[in-house]
Amino acid sequence: MKKNISRLDKNLHLITPSQKSDVKWVSPLHPSIRVEGLPWFLKNNGLFNRFPRSVEKMLRPEVWALSECPAGGCITFRSNTTLLRIKIKNKDASHMPHMPLSGSNGVSLFVGENNDLRPWGTAIPDMESSEFEREFFTNIPPEERNYRLYLPLYHPLQSLYIGIAKNSIIKPPFSHAISKPAVFYGTSITQGGCASTPGSDFINTLGRILNIEMINLGFSGNGKGDIEVAKLMAEINAAIYVLDYLANVNNDLLQKTLFPFYSKLRHKHKNTPILLLSSPCFWQVDFNPALLKEQESKRDYLMSFYVEQRKNGDPNIHFADVFDMLAFATENAYVDGVHPTDHGFTIIATRLAPVLKRILFRNITK
Amino acid sequence: MKKNISRLDKNLHLITPSQKSDVKWVSPLHPSIRVEGLPWFLKNNGLFNRFPRSVEKMLRPEVWALSECPAGGCITFRSNTTLLRIKIKNKDASHMPHMPLSGSNGVSLFVGENNDLRPWGTAIPDMESSEFEREFFTNIPPEERNYRLYLPLYHPLQSLYIGIAKNSIIKPPFSHAISKPAVFYGTSITQGGCASTPGSDFINTLGRILNIEMINLGFSGNGKGDIEVAKLMAEINAAIYVLDYLANVNNDLLQKTLFPFYSKLRHKHKNTPILLLSSPCFWQVDFNPALLKEQESKRDYLMSFYVEQRKNGDPNIHFADVFDMLAFATENAYVDGVHPTDHGFTIIATRLAPVLKRILFRNITK
Repeated sequence: MKKNISRLDKNLHLITPSQKSDVKWVSPLHPSIRVEGLPWFLKNNGLFNRFPRSVEKMLRPEVWALSECPAGGCITFRSNTTLLRIKIKNKDASHMPHMPLSGSNGVSLFVGENNDLRPWGTAIPDMESSEFEREFFTNIPPEERNYRLYLPLYHPLQSLYIGIAKNSIIKPPFSHAISKPAVFYGTSITQGGCASTPGSDFINTLGRILNIEMINLGFSGNGKGDIEVAKLMAEINAAIYVLDYLANVNNDLLQKTLFPFYSKLRHKHKNTPILLLSSPCFWQVDFNPALLKEQESKRDYLMSFYVEQRKNGDPNIHFADVFDMLAFATENAYVDGVHPTDHGFTIIATRLAPVLKRILFRNITK
Repeated sequence: MKKNISRLDKNLHLITPSQKSDVKWVSPLHPSIRVEGLPWFLKNNGLFNRFPRSVEKMLRPEVWALSECPAGGCITFRSNTTLLRIKIKNKDASHMPHMPLSGSNGVSLFVGENNDLRPWGTAIPDMESSEFEREFFTNIPPEERNYRLYLPLYHPLQSLYIGIAKNSIIKPPFSHAISKPAVFYGTSITQGGCASTPGSDFINTLGRILNIEMINLGFSGNGKGDIEVAKLMAEINAAIYVLDYLANVNNDLLQKTLFPFYSKLRHKHKNTPILLLSSPCFWQVDFNPALLKEQESKRDYLMSFYVEQRKNGDPNIHFADVFDMLAFATENAYVDGVHPTDHGFTIIATRLAPVLKRILFRNITK
């Protein structure tokens, strides 16, 4: 193991807490704990997979493999615990050079009341080990609070246990602004690449702003409009379906897949809003005219598709122009010009929030 | 080597370009290339170290080791090249779980005219190799542009060569708003932990906003007010000295070191602005009253020190309250509650920019 610079800085050391007899370990299958963003979690007997175990053979192998990453999943509960730990088993310690282990393989903690969930910390894995235990806090007053733990964005989580004070209780968490979830389909950007923490991708950030359950069906490099995914999405009774897969298809494949994908959802859900998103504007557009042309042509097609469906009498199809939200030449917005940083994700979430409010939360609708 | 998820997503593959006969490799010691942020670069014969080679034995070993990371260093030039590559040799491929290889060991490219430098991309290292070659672009029109390559924030760079088109020329880059640099002294946050790219820490971002050369003397975990560092800083003829080391000292050490550090600078530079910065407000403050007390007590001392020096007749000492700039409970601002993400860094840079403008760039000063 090569020594990294954190040996020189104690603030960057990761600490495995010593064993304590007053910690009670709880499974996410606890009846008062709600696991959000993983609609088949109970059906899968506690497997952290974004799809039901039964569909493995129906999907392209890449989509299935990526569905094993619990992107957008979170564990929520209410408790009067005075300490909080987690114990994690990941598949291994693999990660990417674009994204820190903290974001791909770690867990974020947010705590607070309705519409005021605050960031309390991140459980960051060790560089070389697939298993780790972290203590978020200890010795706080035994008052009831809401807890939300966001799960790894880019790694197949194998098991997770929550450590609370032995004498504390667990209750169901607060309820959301609406009971149905928002379901996003898309790419690596949708999945959360390359957020620094699992709580800072645009979907989880948007979920906190709006107080909605989010379901993240982003598949890194594999948002190719697979009809099997549309079929699975249609099984979810959603508040809104968001299609965000332009970055993973060329214009031909977009034109081939968009109508069938849309129809599969619309057929089963006559009036549910379907929101089409253009891609963020990539840095390379400033010097690569062919890329601009490609981004524009897919965006043009998406807009024409939107206009056509409106004309055909679908008032519940919507379009939002992420291309000019995470806009041309935005500094610090990407790791590599394509995959947003926490800054890029915060911009997308902040600018998409009013779009979802307009569609879902107008005060007067008739 | 464990396989990471980028095997499933071609957009996350890193490409080593094939050899081309029309590439000319240029050293940063080229007479028309300006290396900024590393004031002893020429004296060190092209070593990417933030301090002169001769002072190694004078410094604490941790400070010396960290000075080998070229944080805040950048290579700037003007060229009509039609392609750009870099060839890098790092010490090894070590990195931290809080910070992607792209930020700690990579190189960022910005291109454009005065006050409009735009992000064009990042050279991201391979996971397992200390050497890498990347192509930022090829086949653009042969027009003159300014180029800026930001160097690794958290890794000792061993060598770097710039590949341009064989028939292209290199000229000195555009000049800055002022000829003297801004010199920052501080901690891991100052050094750039945990930015996703070398261009997105707050110092490099601020340098672009203000068009000033920045010198980054942040030393991860080791901004302990070392008087030897003050001595070296005083050798630099600066536009402003910024002291930003509260996060690495307790109140005792702050009180012991601040006056000698300040005096060392003030003695040699009677009228140069000295700016004192409080630390960002850490996430843990929401649930750890002892940490709040510690952050407040050091900030209180800093403010009292500022007031005292003003009373003693120093009109060129300044204070800026980063504590309420990267403020309480800001979402997506940190990796771990302490080390900013690109979002946190962008907030600091954006809010510090008017402070530096007020001190350095008022239109009417008398």
